[in-house]
Amino acid sequence: MSIELTILGNSSATPTLNRFPSAQYLNMLDHHILIDCGEGTQMQLRKYKIKKSKLHYIFISHVHGDHILGLPGLIFSMNLNSRLEPLHIFGPASLFEILDMFLKHSDTRLRFDIVKHITDDSKREVIFENMLIKVTSFPLYHRIPTTGFIFEEQSRLRKLNIEACERYHIPFTFYNDIKRGKDFISADGKTEISNEKLTYDSGLPIRYAYCSDTIYDKRVINEVRDVDWLYHESTFLHEKLERAIETKHTTAKQAGMVAKEANVKNLLIGHFSSRYEDLNELLEEAKTEFPQTEIAEEGITFVFE
Amino acid sequence: MSIELTILGNSSATPTLNRFPSAQYLNMLDHHILIDCGEGTQMQLRKYKIKKSKLHYIFISHVHGDHILGLPGLIFSMNLNSRLEPLHIFGPASLFEILDMFLKHSDTRLRFDIVKHITDDSKREVIFENMLIKVTSFPLYHRIPTTGFIFEEQSRLRKLNIEACERYHIPFTFYNDIKRGKDFISADGKTEISNEKLTYDSGLPIRYAYCSDTIYDKRVINEVRDVDWLYHESTFLHEKLERAIETKHTTAKQAGMVAKEANVKNLLIGHFSSRYEDLNELLEEAKTEFPQTEIAEEGITFVFE
Repeated sequence: MSIELTILGNSSATPTLNRFPSAQYLNMLDHHILIDCGEGTQMQLRKYKIKKSKLHYIFISHVHGDHILGLPGLIFSMNLNSRLEPLHIFGPASLFEILDMFLKHSDTRLRFDIVKHITDDSKREVIFENMLIKVTSFPLYHRIPTTGFIFEEQSRLRKLNIEACERYHIPFTFYNDIKRGKDFISADGKTEISNEKLTYDSGLPIRYAYCSDTIYDKRVINEVRDVDWLYHESTFLHEKLERAIETKHTTAKQAGMVAKEANVKNLLIGHFSSRYEDLNELLEEAKTEFPQTEIAEEGITFVFE
Repeated sequence: MSIELTILGNSSATPTLNRFPSAQYLNMLDHHILIDCGEGTQMQLRKYKIKKSKLHYIFISHVHGDHILGLPGLIFSMNLNSRLEPLHIFGPASLFEILDMFLKHSDTRLRFDIVKHITDDSKREVIFENMLIKVTSFPLYHRIPTTGFIFEEQSRLRKLNIEACERYHIPFTFYNDIKRGKDFISADGKTEISNEKLTYDSGLPIRYAYCSDTIYDKRVINEVRDVDWLYHESTFLHEKLERAIETKHTTAKQAGMVAKEANVKNLLIGHFSSRYEDLNELLEEAKTEFPQTEIAEEGITFVFE
């Protein structure tokens, strides 16, 4: 099971000829997740051959048009395609007011349940958790209530050292416990083999933080500290700092500063103003602060390892 | 001044890889008009090099997603592009409730006025009129309140026969009156020349009827009688008649029947179900009833003459 992020759109407010507004598809240990859903997301899903039927979780950072205008259409299409499975949507209360009004006026009766999870932009909190993954929301600082999200694996299972297990004649029935880190103790209590002789370390759980639409703010740095992958908006070049402050956005240089100060391993930048045709300018600027930066380029799949 | 219709989308509810949902751009005697505004319309305007700044009139048939989901994004982008001119939007009351909720929750303060014109799906009425054009709405028969629209030229000015005007020594100052059909009478009342000696007929005013999302209904035929161009939805092949009736849509054969029975001159079909990859099947079926049929193909501009 892998963790893969596909960029469906990286444009800010106004789409360009080649760039759709914000949307990402995250496959995290077979959890199929959509993060934000700008206008045209259902077309992008189709273009990149991602079946909308398998999406079960949608996380929405805030209700600006470039992050939500694809959602009603996606839901209508799911309904037309005879979806029956519930769809979990995480977002601010206002999102559900908007969706409800659409459904009411279009007289749409959904055949599946939308399970509403209302996010709170005033604090950090775990909003989804199961055996495999955990999702935390945290405050961002934009013009309307906005949250970021951290998607993380739960503790990883250890990898079995099959050769050692066979050598010590460990019964198969003990394998799951051993993967979870337990030592082997035989039924009669006479044989005891420590876990580290039977397994390999499988690395630390991976954490991905999504920071969409926020002004540069030290509190965000604390929220995303030490994550493996950070997506951070990077709407403007630093020469437009004044405009960034006015509209509560971040410059490419500042996105690099967040990555550096938060000690993350990799930075993806996106949410670019339509004024930029050459995204490399933004990339180069972010790299002056944080070399391990990449453009969240539409259609690219990043494998998190 | 010409009348040109550019198709921006011809797909019904679910967009396909190559077909966007309903939207058309009509340039009628320099009135720049958008008819319906499905998801992705602002991208399509950009693709086909139609400046959104010059749009001043938007007509929305009904509030199903595939006809309106591009509208909030288009309005946001117009605002970001510093639009100041008012935007006239014609549509059902529910459309404005939806727009108002979007604007409220996204905390958007528009710098331009939206002039709301609420349509009434219970009767035929003139909803816009000036010296050059007139727009009439009329009831369609779909699952929610829906109207069609007829866009028409006002009476055409007659074409001057310059050679004749010179021969009769008509002063220039009389030309405008003569174009409007008046006879020439000299200041002293002694010379009178009939209009038909001084002008050519410039043809009848052109009328374009837009029928989006309706079941096949005789009342629609009466509404669009004798128009020059009829756009009619044609969601299914006739083999899916039952599904058409259930969802209150029209088949290609029925669209051809409407055109034939209403004695129109040309038929454009659109609003195709995503199940059809080959649109020629729909075209051939409509043509069995009405040979003068064309597909409202995305990106094509029809010149109405």
